[in-house]
Amino acid sequence: MKKLINEPEAVVDEMLEGMVAAHPDYVRRLEGTNVLVRADAPVEDEVGIVSGGGSGHEPTHAGYLGEGMLDGAAAGEVFTSPTADQLQGMIDACEGGAGVLCVVKNYEGDVMNFETAIELAEMEGDAEIEHVVVDDDVAVEDSLYTSGRRGVCGTILVHKVAGAAAARGDDLAEVKRLAEKTVERVGTMGMALTSCTTPEKGEPTFDLPDDEIELGIGIHGEPGVERTEVMKADSVAEHLTERVLEDLEIEEGREVATIVNGMGATPQMELYVVNRRLQELLDERGLDAVERWVGDYMTSLDMAGCSITVLELDDELRELLAAPADTPALTVRGED
Amino acid sequence: MKKLINEPEAVVDEMLEGMVAAHPDYVRRLEGTNVLVRADAPVEDEVGIVSGGGSGHEPTHAGYLGEGMLDGAAAGEVFTSPTADQLQGMIDACEGGAGVLCVVKNYEGDVMNFETAIELAEMEGDAEIEHVVVDDDVAVEDSLYTSGRRGVCGTILVHKVAGAAAARGDDLAEVKRLAEKTVERVGTMGMALTSCTTPEKGEPTFDLPDDEIELGIGIHGEPGVERTEVMKADSVAEHLTERVLEDLEIEEGREVATIVNGMGATPQMELYVVNRRLQELLDERGLDAVERWVGDYMTSLDMAGCSITVLELDDELRELLAAPADTPALTVRGED
Repeated sequence: MKKLINEPEAVVDEMLEGMVAAHPDYVRRLEGTNVLVRADAPVEDEVGIVSGGGSGHEPTHAGYLGEGMLDGAAAGEVFTSPTADQLQGMIDACEGGAGVLCVVKNYEGDVMNFETAIELAEMEGDAEIEHVVVDDDVAVEDSLYTSGRRGVCGTILVHKVAGAAAARGDDLAEVKRLAEKTVERVGTMGMALTSCTTPEKGEPTFDLPDDEIELGIGIHGEPGVERTEVMKADSVAEHLTERVLEDLEIEEGREVATIVNGMGATPQMELYVVNRRLQELLDERGLDAVERWVGDYMTSLDMAGCSITVLELDDELRELLAAPADTPALTVRGED
Repeated sequence: MKKLINEPEAVVDEMLEGMVAAHPDYVRRLEGTNVLVRADAPVEDEVGIVSGGGSGHEPTHAGYLGEGMLDGAAAGEVFTSPTADQLQGMIDACEGGAGVLCVVKNYEGDVMNFETAIELAEMEGDAEIEHVVVDDDVAVEDSLYTSGRRGVCGTILVHKVAGAAAARGDDLAEVKRLAEKTVERVGTMGMALTSCTTPEKGEPTFDLPDDEIELGIGIHGEPGVERTEVMKADSVAEHLTERVLEDLEIEEGREVATIVNGMGATPQMELYVVNRRLQELLDERGLDAVERWVGDYMTSLDMAGCSITVLELDDELRELLAAPADTPALTVRGED
């Protein structure tokens, strides 16, 4: 295993120190925890938007801390849910008087620990706390770590929509409604050229021969649902896009937002080649992609590969996606 | 070789199509060329800032097209200089009446082709054209592809400074002065955990055993100046930082800007672990890092590894780095 780390057991702590050292204007660390919050949290009279999950998916989630996106991000150990007490501490720190919305990726540990944290926070305080569970991965119905679909890169669009709604002053019920609407309309499918290697294990989490790829992978080193011989980028884009669009059943003429997401070790050159075919496919189907993100949004350590996310828009979702955001990983200037 | 591409010989063309499809508000392609320019180029009465070089370094350079950075970016084939006629076309397209500054990374092909392009443009028109050559790599004095030092990630800081100066209306001489000042004060050193593989060759450009790393690598798959056994991230950060700071000889108490740059296949987790130690080292030496960038700024295809860049600031450089920029790869909101 070759990685730019020190001791494997220190990697999350040291990464978080490195993030705070890079972005002190954006984030601060809750002392004694692996929770980062917005430097100015809690924001008074705004719904706090928080998320969290295992580490190894950077910039998810802490990269999205800042104006117009997240107020809190809890980092578990690599591919391991944050503990309920750390989640509770995050919720408390991000409650500015208008309640808190937790955005939870659908993994059993994350869902369980967030539910416990919310119960504890509600018992000990009088804040209103809601949560939404994101389950955008169309590859599998149940998986190694979930009942129901996995939550993957579509989560970032939920962060963006909920964060923008909170920033313009929507109340908790409205922010939750918009987040849930996003969850209902978003689908993702991923693929891998290589496995990933966790710092602790030091070996690839699955074996993948030089002439094969995995379709339908998750973000925790799970193998995919189908193994095929190496395909050209256009065929990969077609396969992923078709699976997502079959699932979403979007009518011709509708507007969509798309993400071509790198899994951590994929050069931008390759992501743009995939985006080229994705946008052609959407054109052919009469879909109008008004937001087209390309980059590393939700990764799986050092996996090479990509995922494609499509979100069906309407006027209110489009407006929220285009609203200003100012975070280390995503900046939207918005209209002047 | 596993890559998300189609035919190797089509990769640059298809990548550029994918970039335009992703960012049509920011960039457009000069017909029949591999040049992208700002969607609104030429910007009237502003100095045009242009750059270019071989592909495989994305987001360099086209990712920096937009307000406050570049007006034009020419993409050669992978690791190959753009041709003089394409560079000339770019210069012409970005000339809005206030002249053009070419930012050239120090490689023999790039320098030669830019010089030819400038001569041709000057013969055929009456625009003022200047250029600066960036040679920030402290690892080697001469290299496989250069006389003098190589131009690497510090180039992005030159783009930012020159672009901000042009955007506020500085004239060509002043923009050039500021760009040259940046070149004089910036140093970079890189390292690799793995080689990179060009689409055309399909094999790693050098062999690197599982227990060794390369220090002082360039961005074109050249091996480094020193091969050592695998080191911890802190030792890597110390080695690179010390070499850069020895070269720059910055006095205690000064302000600096830093980049921890990923080489294309390096997870953000690892870059932040490196940044943690970099910022400690600067603190220990009494240097005040007021800009701290972490991410993929200038890559080398699918190489795993990083580089560290340090720029000594003064008031005018600091102000220009913090000025607004709006590009696909870098957005700075600036002061409200």
